[in-house]
Amino acid sequence: MSSESVLAFAPASVGNVGIGFDILGHTVKAVGDRVRARRTAEKGIRIASITGSAAALPLEPEKNTAGMALVSMASALSLPFGIEIEIEKGIPLGSGLGGSAASAVAAVVAGNALLDAPLSKLELLKFAMHGEAVASGSVHVDNIAPSLFGGLVLTVGIDHPRTKQIPVPPSIRCVLAHPHMFLSTREARRVLRKTVDLSDFVWQTANLAGFLSACYTNDLAMLRDAFEDVIIEPQRATLIPGFKAVKQAAMGNGALGCSISGAGPTVFAWAEEPYAEGVRVAMVEAFAEHDLATDSWVSAIDTEGARILEQ
Amino acid sequence: MSSESVLAFAPASVGNVGIGFDILGHTVKAVGDRVRARRTAEKGIRIASITGSAAALPLEPEKNTAGMALVSMASALSLPFGIEIEIEKGIPLGSGLGGSAASAVAAVVAGNALLDAPLSKLELLKFAMHGEAVASGSVHVDNIAPSLFGGLVLTVGIDHPRTKQIPVPPSIRCVLAHPHMFLSTREARRVLRKTVDLSDFVWQTANLAGFLSACYTNDLAMLRDAFEDVIIEPQRATLIPGFKAVKQAAMGNGALGCSISGAGPTVFAWAEEPYAEGVRVAMVEAFAEHDLATDSWVSAIDTEGARILEQ
Repeated sequence: MSSESVLAFAPASVGNVGIGFDILGHTVKAVGDRVRARRTAEKGIRIASITGSAAALPLEPEKNTAGMALVSMASALSLPFGIEIEIEKGIPLGSGLGGSAASAVAAVVAGNALLDAPLSKLELLKFAMHGEAVASGSVHVDNIAPSLFGGLVLTVGIDHPRTKQIPVPPSIRCVLAHPHMFLSTREARRVLRKTVDLSDFVWQTANLAGFLSACYTNDLAMLRDAFEDVIIEPQRATLIPGFKAVKQAAMGNGALGCSISGAGPTVFAWAEEPYAEGVRVAMVEAFAEHDLATDSWVSAIDTEGARILEQ
Repeated sequence: MSSESVLAFAPASVGNVGIGFDILGHTVKAVGDRVRARRTAEKGIRIASITGSAAALPLEPEKNTAGMALVSMASALSLPFGIEIEIEKGIPLGSGLGGSAASAVAAVVAGNALLDAPLSKLELLKFAMHGEAVASGSVHVDNIAPSLFGGLVLTVGIDHPRTKQIPVPPSIRCVLAHPHMFLSTREARRVLRKTVDLSDFVWQTANLAGFLSACYTNDLAMLRDAFEDVIIEPQRATLIPGFKAVKQAAMGNGALGCSISGAGPTVFAWAEEPYAEGVRVAMVEAFAEHDLATDSWVSAIDTEGARILEQ
């Protein structure tokens, strides 16, 4: 079994979720990346092909998030065989939907299925993180953990990350509007100030705590009050033409919260199911008024993470 | 009924709870303040007496947290009568156990019982906040809200505060060691830097989120990992002689977390019930080695807040 090819899927994800910079992320059912992997007699990692929405990515394993994740895995486990992968990108490059994380996650999940003694998802987390670091320039897990485990996921700690799936009120849908522009994660990180005002810190922690508490208790009134990033969003908003109008459109049509997905430029909103389609249309129109075409989705927040599709 | 005297009790509280600066607090069953209130024909607020552990507090209503809370209440409601109170302090002055908040809360709860149409606790919150501002120099609610509502309480927002009781794992006890020294809230606030490093901000929010998530899911392993204030505690630790040794003593004897209660100098720890007494003894001994006598308590985290004792 372990010598045949396997096909793994890892979902896209909304990193940060506004109020959880670098610690929260949630999956999106609508879109994701696939990686097919097979054992090779020759040791080492080889990327045979990259297809789909972002085919221009590097084929050298050490420069590719999926490749580097497997390089890290093969090295840590001293694998006696090599792995060849085919990457099928479903997530647009530089969209802020966790595409690099999804590729890394799909790669380690596929690679794991080739092992004689497969590891737990928690053990796979670090390998995927090493892959993600290639794209973002730093090790962080707010896309990796949700793509791997599924749902709204909190990650505490970097060296020995501990993750927690947070329940999402069942009526919630995630609306995504991805404007057709490129924004690199590095650039979006570069604009951030290195310090936070103490008063903003208190405000933001109150909102984060309120958001989590609201999720655990299905308290939509508190969710709406708390769903406001006062630190990162204001610094990145100007990188996305029309962001303010898009957010106003979402909130004016019943969204509970709206912010930047990961490093952007995709804008996400949370809304109760009956409002979600109206929020989507309003966000798309607001981007159009700023001359940006968009892809857009309404998606449940998948509670299933990366998985094997064929084995 | 409303013309007779009433006696109200409000419990002490641990503000901040380490990782929740200005937003979290929890009550302590062991100690609290009492306020007796009666209607007077003459309008205005009058403090007849202050007894107990902190009798040197000002009798002028506008300079006293209990008095000012009632001044605020009487003004907002245009009360057609006056209120006279007797304050019995059970909480040591400047201890970091929310004494000023407890007096303000006990006062508004007692005063409320004198009204022809008593208000809800949520409506009383703002009056107590105005009282607390007299002592701390700024409006904050991390002691007020728990003392009023009881338990571990999150407060989101200042102008229209929304509160949430967070479940505490049932095995948890709070250990308190109050060293006999005075530390003013103003001084403890003055030492704080006005900004927070972005990396510390991420670390702290991860810990806060982990702490809350652990409370909601009774996950003591995560509680222990996340129970670390990396921003405020390091700046205030030097204000309390022996703090580092006291914390090491607590953690070395099985505490899940240990930090400064409110603005200090009281140090608190959370521990499972079988460890709590050993943690208390170790903390007291560590303070003694720094020539500080202490009062100390092991207390359940009361889920009942301020209440009327006699009416």
